[in-house]
Amino acid sequence: MLLYKQISQTLQEKIHRGDYLSGEKLPSVRAIGREHAVSLTTAQLAYRELEKMQLIYAVPKSGYFVIPDKSEALLPKVVNYIQKPVHIEQWNPTIDFLRVEEREGVTSLSCAVPNIDTKTLEPLWQEMNMVSRRKNRLMLEYDSLQGLAALREQIHNISDHKPLITADDIVTTTSGHQSLSLAIQACTQGADVVAVESPAFPGLLQTLYGLGRKIIEIPTDPQTGIDLDRVQEAFERWPVKAVIVTPTCNNPMGCSMPDIHKQRLLELTTQHGAAIIENDILAGLAYDYPRPSTIKSLDNEGRVILCSSFSKTIAPGTRTGWIVPGKYKEKVMHLKYLSHCSGEIFMQQVMANFLRDGHYFPHLRHMRQHYSELQCQYRELVESHFPPMTRISRPQGGFSLWVEHPPVDSRKLLEVLKRNKVIVLTGDHFSTSNCFANHLRINYALPLIPRRRNGIKILGETLKLASL
Amino acid sequence: MLLYKQISQTLQEKIHRGDYLSGEKLPSVRAIGREHAVSLTTAQLAYRELEKMQLIYAVPKSGYFVIPDKSEALLPKVVNYIQKPVHIEQWNPTIDFLRVEEREGVTSLSCAVPNIDTKTLEPLWQEMNMVSRRKNRLMLEYDSLQGLAALREQIHNISDHKPLITADDIVTTTSGHQSLSLAIQACTQGADVVAVESPAFPGLLQTLYGLGRKIIEIPTDPQTGIDLDRVQEAFERWPVKAVIVTPTCNNPMGCSMPDIHKQRLLELTTQHGAAIIENDILAGLAYDYPRPSTIKSLDNEGRVILCSSFSKTIAPGTRTGWIVPGKYKEKVMHLKYLSHCSGEIFMQQVMANFLRDGHYFPHLRHMRQHYSELQCQYRELVESHFPPMTRISRPQGGFSLWVEHPPVDSRKLLEVLKRNKVIVLTGDHFSTSNCFANHLRINYALPLIPRRRNGIKILGETLKLASL
Repeated sequence: MLLYKQISQTLQEKIHRGDYLSGEKLPSVRAIGREHAVSLTTAQLAYRELEKMQLIYAVPKSGYFVIPDKSEALLPKVVNYIQKPVHIEQWNPTIDFLRVEEREGVTSLSCAVPNIDTKTLEPLWQEMNMVSRRKNRLMLEYDSLQGLAALREQIHNISDHKPLITADDIVTTTSGHQSLSLAIQACTQGADVVAVESPAFPGLLQTLYGLGRKIIEIPTDPQTGIDLDRVQEAFERWPVKAVIVTPTCNNPMGCSMPDIHKQRLLELTTQHGAAIIENDILAGLAYDYPRPSTIKSLDNEGRVILCSSFSKTIAPGTRTGWIVPGKYKEKVMHLKYLSHCSGEIFMQQVMANFLRDGHYFPHLRHMRQHYSELQCQYRELVESHFPPMTRISRPQGGFSLWVEHPPVDSRKLLEVLKRNKVIVLTGDHFSTSNCFANHLRINYALPLIPRRRNGIKILGETLKLASL
Repeated sequence: MLLYKQISQTLQEKIHRGDYLSGEKLPSVRAIGREHAVSLTTAQLAYRELEKMQLIYAVPKSGYFVIPDKSEALLPKVVNYIQKPVHIEQWNPTIDFLRVEEREGVTSLSCAVPNIDTKTLEPLWQEMNMVSRRKNRLMLEYDSLQGLAALREQIHNISDHKPLITADDIVTTTSGHQSLSLAIQACTQGADVVAVESPAFPGLLQTLYGLGRKIIEIPTDPQTGIDLDRVQEAFERWPVKAVIVTPTCNNPMGCSMPDIHKQRLLELTTQHGAAIIENDILAGLAYDYPRPSTIKSLDNEGRVILCSSFSKTIAPGTRTGWIVPGKYKEKVMHLKYLSHCSGEIFMQQVMANFLRDGHYFPHLRHMRQHYSELQCQYRELVESHFPPMTRISRPQGGFSLWVEHPPVDSRKLLEVLKRNKVIVLTGDHFSTSNCFANHLRINYALPLIPRRRNGIKILGETLKLASL
């Protein structure tokens, strides 16, 4: 066994024995090096291992700490309801939620926005400045239908499925949302049946609703993702045309599928002549490094349509996404033309330069660390203020917690929250079934400033009071 | 009669009598002032009148000239075929055209792009620079679903239907193309019948094809626009759900509807419970000033959905459009959410500042003059190189000529053009019928550099050779 692995194992045992208590500061890297007579690099590697296992977290310029009591809260239960294809009926609740978010003085705990106040985004402003100073007339013209070549090349460079494709296999879009919408329209039509993870994020359900597709919700495990036996069952019983999955950093649960599951899902869909729509939008924020592989990287047939964007990894305002449409490329190009003809070149150029100049990976590295720390802080807060028996997901990346609380009077809950100007997305936005009535998504991308800390406290206390 | 009108009438008579020949330079404003004993302003106004009537054109720092022989070429004929709703079948030709445009070394004579090499767009770069230097974190966030308030307010300010609406009645989009697509989806569905002007521009036909709507093509006069008797007939015979019109600066013909026609069209659609989709994208480039009014400005019921953008008036790269959806606002917001969630803030802010700082109207003034001059130059070139009996539209704004030439062997035509790397949009892109087999759209927004001049010459000579 490698030296650093031995050390990390020793430390792991100490944490489990309680030699280092939950939340306690660990010895410095230097001290570990001295104690085990190893280099600083080896000591550092040992701590990195423990970080990956989510036993400890780092605070810059301060050191490493034991993640508080993570074993305490259980994972949300997997719901095992009877599956059948249904039309989505809800709509306005999600749009209403989007509108409320816009009002001032409201604390939104479920807003899926990344933290953009980070030094690692400083170069983005510089690139914007450079592009606008260069006065390249190209910026004011129509983009090609496929999207700016310079950006497609950079996206190709950062793809884990790079060997399988070229920059010409990529089409840029205005967002991950648009990528998904184009993908769904490219491989399904009318009231076709589409399988989705359950819970599914509201943006996806609303898009499927808008397009008139029927959906079949597949139970999804908060650690290993979509239940493949149930996918198989769905394929056998219904004419499922496509499966939409988020193999890495699922939204809302944060889980990632084991590689072996990805392989099996691809086999299943191949067997049934269906397509896979792979939502890869949060994968750059997987706490594991290098990032877990895509299903696309296993796909030799062009059956997988990969959808992504920089909205969550960099900033929503970049409005730059992409799609790797495989054999659906012509269809996707047509649909893009129908939707808005062509994209904006300015921001595509800015993003291409940001990537070209090497700012992307350092930024991701920083954000992974940052979100991993914030996850601990938010978990701790939820655990200490929510009712007993609350269950919490253990995200392997991204920035959302999926929380299952004891049953409450939801009318009462929403009333109190409204009075306190706190809003949160409840489970009913994530499914057409009634299975997630006692669930919430809490986003932990933003620092725990007092207002937000207070919001979670109010939410927790209200859940206790409204308990049935 | 006002003094300047008297003078302009005198000059008009002289031009018609041939006292000033086609293409000849007119006396200076100073000379006219002296001759008629009036102020320079009055003399200037007299010339402006003649410009409006398209009898003369101005060349900056040089003076006024008689527009060459505009009476020579006749207007394209109005085609009066039997109307019935049909599905659109062509698709790839237009996409193929878009792709060819991207290749280098090709001279495209039909590319609907404005001239962006103008000093009046210099402030746009400055605004871009200012916004990127200010580092406002808002730029990196999600936009509200309705679009940036600052931009909506500025758009409201420049609207001719301003008194009827507020900034809250405007939704921003990524382009005029998207505005139209959202509008069509908001007021029609499935295989509903939609009436369109004939010829109609390819982007519109392709959008309707993509959405699966049936269309009924209404004969359209190259001077007064859509034939209202035929609209009425269509309403009486078929379940027409919406009429899509470009009342000002029609594409491809450049005509504008008389005000009385706008009123009647609104009455007709009201009577039949249909919607009007008003394409206003080129109206800022009407040579008439102030710009002709919108149908929207007559609409008290919210029946008219106005679609516009800055793609043609400023630059396609701004990717900033808007829609005034009237009573379809909720539907349009939903559809916008489905398409791409929200827009990019950066360019919306740049455009808002460009308008706020007063750069919009001076730019339009400059472009109107510029395109009016270019129209004369292009007309002259077409008239001298195209076969006899060629008919040409007389645009009242915008930057496209609709040309009807004698019948040709179209296979031969396309072959020669391809060999010479000249591309042009032929009439079959503008209709599902076979009525425009001998038509072309020529765009005159770009200066007549030798390559383009040569392209038109080759086109004309080839048309002569390929004549049947």
